[in-house]
Amino acid sequence: VKVDGKSWRTIWPEPDGSVGIIDQRHLPHAFVVERLTDVLSVARAIADMHVRGAGLIGATAAWGMYLAAREAGERDFFGDVERSAALLCETRPTAVNLSWAAGRVLAVLRAAPPLREARLAAARAEAEAITDGDAAMCASIGHHGLALFRDLHERRSGAVVNVLTHCNAGWLAFVDHGSATAPIYAAHDAGIPVHVWVDETRPRNQGASLTAWELGQHGVPHTVIVDNAGGHLMQHGRVDLVITGADRVTRQGDAANKIGTYLKALAARDNGVPFYVALPSSTFDWRMRDGLREIPIEERSADEVRFITGHDGEGVRSVRVTPPGSPAANPGFDVTPARLITGLITERGVCAAREEAIVELFPDHKDPA
Amino acid sequence: VKVDGKSWRTIWPEPDGSVGIIDQRHLPHAFVVERLTDVLSVARAIADMHVRGAGLIGATAAWGMYLAAREAGERDFFGDVERSAALLCETRPTAVNLSWAAGRVLAVLRAAPPLREARLAAARAEAEAITDGDAAMCASIGHHGLALFRDLHERRSGAVVNVLTHCNAGWLAFVDHGSATAPIYAAHDAGIPVHVWVDETRPRNQGASLTAWELGQHGVPHTVIVDNAGGHLMQHGRVDLVITGADRVTRQGDAANKIGTYLKALAARDNGVPFYVALPSSTFDWRMRDGLREIPIEERSADEVRFITGHDGEGVRSVRVTPPGSPAANPGFDVTPARLITGLITERGVCAAREEAIVELFPDHKDPA
Repeated sequence: VKVDGKSWRTIWPEPDGSVGIIDQRHLPHAFVVERLTDVLSVARAIADMHVRGAGLIGATAAWGMYLAAREAGERDFFGDVERSAALLCETRPTAVNLSWAAGRVLAVLRAAPPLREARLAAARAEAEAITDGDAAMCASIGHHGLALFRDLHERRSGAVVNVLTHCNAGWLAFVDHGSATAPIYAAHDAGIPVHVWVDETRPRNQGASLTAWELGQHGVPHTVIVDNAGGHLMQHGRVDLVITGADRVTRQGDAANKIGTYLKALAARDNGVPFYVALPSSTFDWRMRDGLREIPIEERSADEVRFITGHDGEGVRSVRVTPPGSPAANPGFDVTPARLITGLITERGVCAAREEAIVELFPDHKDPA
Repeated sequence: VKVDGKSWRTIWPEPDGSVGIIDQRHLPHAFVVERLTDVLSVARAIADMHVRGAGLIGATAAWGMYLAAREAGERDFFGDVERSAALLCETRPTAVNLSWAAGRVLAVLRAAPPLREARLAAARAEAEAITDGDAAMCASIGHHGLALFRDLHERRSGAVVNVLTHCNAGWLAFVDHGSATAPIYAAHDAGIPVHVWVDETRPRNQGASLTAWELGQHGVPHTVIVDNAGGHLMQHGRVDLVITGADRVTRQGDAANKIGTYLKALAARDNGVPFYVALPSSTFDWRMRDGLREIPIEERSADEVRFITGHDGEGVRSVRVTPPGSPAANPGFDVTPARLITGLITERGVCAAREEAIVELFPDHKDPA
């Protein structure tokens, strides 16, 4: 994706062996690039959310394992890299992508010839494969989702297609393209007129600060709205489809995503608006069926509700919006039941949010593991 | 209601003929009293939301009409007061209470003897009647709504009753007691254990800044949540009922209220949670049936979305949360269709959101005027 006209990914290797990232904590107020030179700085970048999003933290952990191999001593090479893997996996304990990516790099290190150069080359190649694989899955989601936009564009006789999205499932959450945004970028790039309603996504405002910024940089017309507004827009025919990302999707198609997603799904159903969830297959949890009962919901700090961060003209500041004595609660995710989801957009195609349809696309998972 | 132990209403006449209000823009960070001395300052106080809420802007418009009568010239008295009435009614398009209150004062001015003193006395008496009537209607709403809490409290075998509310339909939105909060205060004062989930209510945060502050001052247990969270709480059985206010309710029971109310009504329906709208009869628009088609929805400034105001430890500041180039849209209200409303809590009792049930309570309005 382009930023100020230049192509960027969210993570990249530098010639000197360090790893470049965009420190997303500063967006949309500043575009700050950071170089990670050792495992500790990688762990800190994930834990403190310089990088966030399922796909991106997986890729970051993979590059962290490459740096771990560089740092490891000759005497206890696997002891050292395993300690680094544990450190990386502890940064965000709920995200499955971390252990998946760290495990992949560990496996190639074990399979490589026991020579320093061979090991580093293998780790680097695997981190590149994970990074490129993430971008490729998202590109493929874009390809499959594009058909939905073409169809809507034709049915609306060439009028602008209005899509609503919640939170940031954009390229900033992955290596490139994003999940929910991939079909949007693909449609825009294919010349289909698209306009995006961007839910600001309280409490952390990932929509207002990240999705709006991404879309603006890529030249996609968009309008930021409060999370309260989407239902009203749907009642008045101003939303043609909804696409969100997901943090975890069960075998039967229940989707955990940023808090508030469920409310948009209800409004979409009430107004006959198609509601899609876009995800790479790494987001499926093949062991779970009933998302509402089984998916654990992270309760985050009340201060994310009580304080809001923004730019006051001079710099970035936090302001308190609640009375000092009022408690706050902050569930981070909710679960949208499969019955409210029109379809899932995956790298292998679009399918219904039903177990039979999902395992038809992913036959390796016909039996719960 | 009490603030720091002292009894307050939201609007009152001063001995010098001016009108006192609480400038609510400063809450919860500061308690600021303002004096309105002429029609223009009244119109500005309503438009810029020093005062807000259906009942309170009605009462403020009534006092504005009293000030209008004081300012009107002898030569074209009714031309002058009618221009003032038009100015006041244009300040906020969605709430019906403005034209209702201005019309009441106009009517008594026309009926009064054509003498300056008699007209001023009549206008003042009517403004007082509207103000006292608003407080009395809200007290009565509290009385009728209390029965719902008693019933839930018994059915839950004495457990805490969890109620969710959106925006501020508290005493700050009326002259006293509030509409949605009146049953909550009545239940709390009657010793029923109540806990309130307070939607922060973006973009203006009336929940986080006003409802939380009110409830805290009165000692009612409450927790502030982002607007995205209510559906999740209902899915997990943590909300026993929802009560909101309304800015305009049609003959068939469709209710315009703060943007986002519709989403909570959908979630309540999906989870079998009773959803009530509390309103004094001054909020009915007897000329309208189909709220979704007929009620005008105010589009407010995009800057209310782009900037958030809070306290940074030193003072109150606005911070920008969106990228500089991203547009924003800000519809102020949405319409909840009657089919999603369990019942209306009015000063004459609780009734179904159906025309037959509504006009049975208000037989004067059996025929659309």
